[in-house]
Amino acid sequence: MTKELRPADDGYAERVRESVLRQQALATIGTRLEEVTPGAVTLAFEYQQHLTQQHGFIHAGILATVLDSACGYAAYSLMPADAGVLTIEFKINLLSPARGERFVAHGRVAKPGRTITVAQGDLYGAGPDGEKHVASMTATIMTIAGRDDVRG
Amino acid sequence: MTKELRPADDGYAERVRESVLRQQALATIGTRLEEVTPGAVTLAFEYQQHLTQQHGFIHAGILATVLDSACGYAAYSLMPADAGVLTIEFKINLLSPARGERFVAHGRVAKPGRTITVAQGDLYGAGPDGEKHVASMTATIMTIAGRDDVRG
Amino acid sequence: MTKELRPADDGYAERVRESVLRQQALATIGTRLEEVTPGAVTLAFEYQQHLTQQHGFIHAGILATVLDSACGYAAYSLMPADAGVLTIEFKINLLSPARGERFVAHGRVAKPGRTITVAQGDLYGAGPDGEKHVASMTATIMTIAGRDDVRG
Amino acid sequence: MTKELRPADDGYAERVRESVLRQQALATIGTRLEEVTPGAVTLAFEYQQHLTQQHGFIHAGILATVLDSACGYAAYSLMPADAGVLTIEFKINLLSPARGERFVAHGRVAKPGRTITVAQGDLYGAGPDGEKHVASMTATIMTIAGRDDVRG
Repeated sequence: MTKELRPADDGYAERVRESVLRQQALATIGTRLEEVTPGAVTLAFEYQQHLTQQHGFIHAGILATVLDSACGYAAYSLMPADAGVLTIEFKINLLSPARGERFVAHGRVAKPGRTITVAQGDLYGAGPDGEKHVASMTATIMTIAGRDDVRG
Repeated sequence: MTKELRPADDGYAERVRESVLRQQALATIGTRLEEVTPGAVTLAFEYQQHLTQQHGFIHAGILATVLDSACGYAAYSLMPADAGVLTIEFKINLLSPARGERFVAHGRVAKPGRTITVAQGDLYGAGPDGEKHVASMTATIMTIAGRDDVRG
Repeated sequence: MTKELRPADDGYAERVRESVLRQQALATIGTRLEEVTPGAVTLAFEYQQHLTQQHGFIHAGILATVLDSACGYAAYSLMPADAGVLTIEFKINLLSPARGERFVAHGRVAKPGRTITVAQGDLYGAGPDGEKHVASMTATIMTIAGRDDVRG
Repeated sequence: MTKELRPADDGYAERVRESVLRQQALATIGTRLEEVTPGAVTLAFEYQQHLTQQHGFIHAGILATVLDSACGYAAYSLMPADAGVLTIEFKINLLSPARGERFVAHGRVAKPGRTITVAQGDLYGAGPDGEKHVASMTATIMTIAGRDDVRG
């Protein structure tokens, strides 16, 4: 994307920050918000045993949880203050086993829209052996207006 | 699928059962193995606060974790005893908000293959208002032979 | 799907039929509408050289064209007379090489919705060696109201 | 991807060129190979009536045909001379209506692999109103060795 993305609400960063803190699934994973700019969000978490699958790597679904959140918040950062977001669908490709001590997920809006926003995400794992591209995601996100149960 | 699926290993149910128990991410979610037949696996879990997103529904990534596991084990149930499985990619559609007290994920093999298996999954939420179709998944799974780090 | 799907418009079958005929890409492929019921559409086409890829099989994109249309029309069959449909995204799994003399694509609505409908499709190839499951699709379709350029 | 991709075969560009010419579906669409470098391929085609859907835009499946080919050839450009490629699955997001006089599809390898390669593609439409991002794709491609029916 070469076009600059403009937030509809100046308080976008604070809104994202507060919403991340309300996600208990993200707390269970130990996810931190690292950065938020208009249309782009970075989340990070550390390797922990309770997130692993049978081979000791981080479970693909846990990677999906963090990537989906990074994509959803990237979309949310561009929306009006009273809007909510719902992920309609996402697809994840698992590119390498999720080894590493620390994982970083970048979500960015590929195509903003009034109703439908498409976001893309990439997750990297870092450890003593360097950084690896672990997973990539495409997510389709719907803007929801006027529904109290899906605000923010 | 009308064709009957045949397991390559008679001990398939026990292999699946043991592998589920080794997945710490599934324990974190409180996932139980409900049923395993050749090419089909059912997993279940209960609503818990630590699995929710900002609206109080179960996080889409947690649904994906359980559905991916149901699909992966459906594929695994058909494989030779010494094979491992790796999910290459999956796609999930979120059909309704994940409300409910109890969630059940069914995974089944749509197309078995020596190297590549395609599985499909459906997740339902049940509560006082009845049962809802919450999410559906398609997953592409690769059989891995001869690698100790991805056995079972 | 156990729930019966109800069309919003009694003239749904005629609307689908007319719209199929307006799709010149479908004519290029030689696609015929075989059946339309509420929420389900079957399209068919024959093997032709001008649809093949480098190995002589039908090109995956041609399979996708017919499956996307079957899914889109399955969604369209349930919509009000003045609505249009747009595919937001689809995913296709290629299960076997597209050999055969005749190909049949079934699309059906998995989850109807006012704005977003999810449909699933399966494509089979038939020839002297019997019938093969060639491809499966999940498509996300948006209902468009009040836009002349996307009616029907 | 910052890493430079290395072709396994010096004759990669010629192999891609010859294979494109063998794809009759691409000829039906009027697809031309514009550029091939290691791990990246650009294809282009013009607007033609016989490729349209009911609203007069290019059919999503035709876009998918060209994007899938761009992704597949991007993967193929990195492979040994005697290998073949098969698309296992792809997902396409339709970002804007496919208006325009000329369409360009860029495919590039996101993650090369011995058996599985992941490629991403973007398709743009250009006309009097400028250029639009029309669609994006992720494709999973398998390397096939030793099978005469899927060579090149």
